[in-house]
Amino acid sequence: MTTHVRIVGAGLIGTSLGIALSNKGFRVSLVDPSPTAVRLARDLRAGEIADDAMPPPDVVAVAAPPDVAARVVVTELNRWPDAVVTDTASVKESILRVVLDSGADASRYVGSHPMAGRERSGAAAARGDLFDGRAWVVVPHEGSTEAAVRLVRSLAVAVGSAVSVMPAHEHDEAVAAVSHVPQLASSIVAACLRDLPDTAVGLAGPGIRDVTRIAASDPRLWTQILAGNAPAVRDVMRHVRADVDAVIGALDELVEADGHGSLGTLSRVLEAGNLGHARIPGKHGSAPAAYGVVSVVVPDEPGSLARLLTDMGNAGINLEDLHLEHGLGQAVGVAEISVVPASVEPLLTELARLGWRVHD
Amino acid sequence: MTTHVRIVGAGLIGTSLGIALSNKGFRVSLVDPSPTAVRLARDLRAGEIADDAMPPPDVVAVAAPPDVAARVVVTELNRWPDAVVTDTASVKESILRVVLDSGADASRYVGSHPMAGRERSGAAAARGDLFDGRAWVVVPHEGSTEAAVRLVRSLAVAVGSAVSVMPAHEHDEAVAAVSHVPQLASSIVAACLRDLPDTAVGLAGPGIRDVTRIAASDPRLWTQILAGNAPAVRDVMRHVRADVDAVIGALDELVEADGHGSLGTLSRVLEAGNLGHARIPGKHGSAPAAYGVVSVVVPDEPGSLARLLTDMGNAGINLEDLHLEHGLGQAVGVAEISVVPASVEPLLTELARLGWRVHD
Repeated sequence: MTTHVRIVGAGLIGTSLGIALSNKGFRVSLVDPSPTAVRLARDLRAGEIADDAMPPPDVVAVAAPPDVAARVVVTELNRWPDAVVTDTASVKESILRVVLDSGADASRYVGSHPMAGRERSGAAAARGDLFDGRAWVVVPHEGSTEAAVRLVRSLAVAVGSAVSVMPAHEHDEAVAAVSHVPQLASSIVAACLRDLPDTAVGLAGPGIRDVTRIAASDPRLWTQILAGNAPAVRDVMRHVRADVDAVIGALDELVEADGHGSLGTLSRVLEAGNLGHARIPGKHGSAPAAYGVVSVVVPDEPGSLARLLTDMGNAGINLEDLHLEHGLGQAVGVAEISVVPASVEPLLTELARLGWRVHD
Repeated sequence: MTTHVRIVGAGLIGTSLGIALSNKGFRVSLVDPSPTAVRLARDLRAGEIADDAMPPPDVVAVAAPPDVAARVVVTELNRWPDAVVTDTASVKESILRVVLDSGADASRYVGSHPMAGRERSGAAAARGDLFDGRAWVVVPHEGSTEAAVRLVRSLAVAVGSAVSVMPAHEHDEAVAAVSHVPQLASSIVAACLRDLPDTAVGLAGPGIRDVTRIAASDPRLWTQILAGNAPAVRDVMRHVRADVDAVIGALDELVEADGHGSLGTLSRVLEAGNLGHARIPGKHGSAPAAYGVVSVVVPDEPGSLARLLTDMGNAGINLEDLHLEHGLGQAVGVAEISVVPASVEPLLTELARLGWRVHD
């Protein structure tokens, strides 16, 4: 029998989920406080607009903003006594607490965090492959039934996500460290640029560009996310403060007392960063790989990078990552190409033979 | 007459400079405490090994590690009474102070900061185009002669760099904000990952990868850089600490008092990050450009990205930037392609026509 999924919230996530599930043969009904949003979602083939004549849903996916998600989950649990209910908010413990305290039948609630998003929001930005190949964390609690967990997991699998399962507090601690605190750090570093003279920001290189890329994120959404995960974010931010204090203390000593012991503090912070960086898994969820990097000078004109990658493809060498750098005021760039270590030498040889300016 | 440049220090920067200047017809002589390093540099065509029979240099470039650069500059000023002396260290005020206090003829000293580097160090990593298209900051002081400034500037231009001129304190404040503090922030965020469970670091997405990319930098070099620019780095780090404290205060209120006023604090930090991020210039030193981003699903196999970029090149559309994302556990990636806004629509149309899965 066709599974009926009711999606509450026709924003980016809800509409994308509707499109993806409809494509996979699920029956999808849609609700949203905004009649315009829900009609747009329907026109994008995310599902039918829900009405009272429909049979009750098998599963409800609450894709509402983080600050209202908990309340909507409770309402849906009470309204559909046989349905499994999940939500897609990026924080989980605070929502679970509200659900458990509500008196609703929490055995049918299983949280979700599909780790997909875009810079743009709203139904208009939706796409059916938003979850394709992304992580989707399924977050049961002690009282969740096995059937409920299975059903929520099947949605994630249907839309192409890679499922991991963990309890709410573990999820929240993980995203505090791998997502929420990096967002704050990026914003805080970028904020230091606000009042710099133009000549100073003119010296910005690839390092600060990477560190501050996500500082362009939406403050309204992120305020909700941080507030929803306040305890876990606070814990990680206290570690950050301890390191910041240690660095400032070391710099104080250097400025005021020419203290050489303080060099050890700076070095320790930088070394801890090396160790933490090495923990980040490589692509495809595999262990971190130390790729070899080959730098190639690329003229800044249409087709030149394509020619380079065609030459790589012809040599049978797979690109693992690519980073473009442009010098200040120059119409030439450097492509930094990551490949598996065994491919570095063949790549250097082949590209040099074909006339590329190339360096390992 | 051929300009004779004496380069002191046959590491990455000194050797690369020697190769670049030799290519441009300068006479280059090389010295280094390590006889092996200086012979390697000579073999890489960075110049001749200096000997006493040579005529005195017109200009000396000190490419020694940051913690010894000042002392070497003074020695060279005293040894060559008619030569202009520059150095290539990435901090300038602390070196200038030593030079001014030394009693040497500082009118012939002009600092330099060529903003080029690599993950690898040493003469073996040198390349003649290291400075090609990079920023080179020329740092005169009040007593520098115009002739000295002109000569140092001419070296930077000869190796293809884009020259900017600013006083030492301005340079140091600028790089504290655009380079040194971003390095510290990246290291500190990465350090928070050290003790996470594997399942938690498994949730790392593109955001934290960008923020922590430079956390892989060399702690020994960076300890010297930070120590050499301690006063300016400390000033910016105090701003960072004020924001970190404000965020923790707001989170405290949320955890303990459910304080809604504290949302304003979080939002303000995130908005300040938006404003600072918008200050970073676009490529080629131009004003920041709001590029359009087009996402294309790319199978993870040799040649597929090349095919995509060939299709772009055939359509006459220039790539401004490229970012690859790989989903956890999936052999498919998403290429996020930045192009000028006017190219977004034509690119979407053309790629879709050719069968690419594409989204704006």
